[in-house]
Amino acid sequence: MQAPAHPPLSDVPALAERAADLLRTPGALLNLTPPEATVLVAQMRLVHFGPGVTLFREGDDVRLDHLLLVLEGEVSIEVGIGGSMIPVAISVVGPGSVIGEMALLDGSPRSASCTTISAVQAAALSRQGLEKLIDQQPRVAAKLLIGLGSRTGERLRALGEQLQMYAGVVEQQQQQIDRLKAGRAAG
Amino acid sequence: MQAPAHPPLSDVPALAERAADLLRTPGALLNLTPPEATVLVAQMRLVHFGPGVTLFREGDDVRLDHLLLVLEGEVSIEVGIGGSMIPVAISVVGPGSVIGEMALLDGSPRSASCTTISAVQAAALSRQGLEKLIDQQPRVAAKLLIGLGSRTGERLRALGEQLQMYAGVVEQQQQQIDRLKAGRAAG
Repeated sequence: MQAPAHPPLSDVPALAERAADLLRTPGALLNLTPPEATVLVAQMRLVHFGPGVTLFREGDDVRLDHLLLVLEGEVSIEVGIGGSMIPVAISVVGPGSVIGEMALLDGSPRSASCTTISAVQAAALSRQGLEKLIDQQPRVAAKLLIGLGSRTGERLRALGEQLQMYAGVVEQQQQQIDRLKAGRAAG
Repeated sequence: MQAPAHPPLSDVPALAERAADLLRTPGALLNLTPPEATVLVAQMRLVHFGPGVTLFREGDDVRLDHLLLVLEGEVSIEVGIGGSMIPVAISVVGPGSVIGEMALLDGSPRSASCTTISAVQAAALSRQGLEKLIDQQPRVAAKLLIGLGSRTGERLRALGEQLQMYAGVVEQQQQQIDRLKAGRAAG
């Protein structure tokens, strides 16, 4: 992660409060109470990125282990599609969005790339921060983990639907190929 | 869940011990110590299913909320593929396999169907069991949740790879269609 400095978020009370509020929006899917959000924020650090910075890169096996809560700015999420692996932006996310949860959970190669569109301020939770949270506030940690699991489940279902859509296109194209070949043979 | 009776797994010590052992195999990805596995098993119940029973059905919005650890027997995991939604078996899993983790985490419609191939004995953890675990042994709960998150991440990456494979096939088929059409126009 290209973060030249990452002070504890609690050093900047206004941003810490904003992070706690954003963690409680329905989109974050974490279902935290205000005190729980404050406890989680206490383990987060403040990170800044300029525009055009790659936060996570698809297939990257560098073991980044941070979850990011976007506080300011926008991030483009991209996947490589097709044999040519042309990056396709699948969404642009802004304040309140959580990215990198799989990086936090298992530090494995990314399934998507994330690039900042504008300057971005984010609250980062490292694996170490998560371990501390589990140690000191295990119930909040469990709630966070269930929330991240639900989010991943949503992505699984969305990917599954896309897969079925593609499978349908493959079927239709094959039928068209068969018809075209039959037509050529007949002509 | 079609479970006529589901006694606590601890009522059958031999199976409880087997469950604790299976939870610790590398395939379960949970990274539990023996005492942690025992603590988790204490929240599980024993369920039996006959052959040919659907455990979770794709798209089912009945909010089943159980995670199952297969103790005996085999389960077929299927997804509906293509416009025709023909079920395709994607894998057959046996003792030591964990299924239904998304059911446990968010009780949302299934992304795959699971059907027993033979008679199956399984250890079930309900949402209620998970809540108890979070309450009584939050560190074990957090470890379980991180493990389930890693598993889901692996599935996300596998699905992402399948999606790219399909996208590549769509591209190739389109090129073939274009060539066939050009050939027909020329002929």
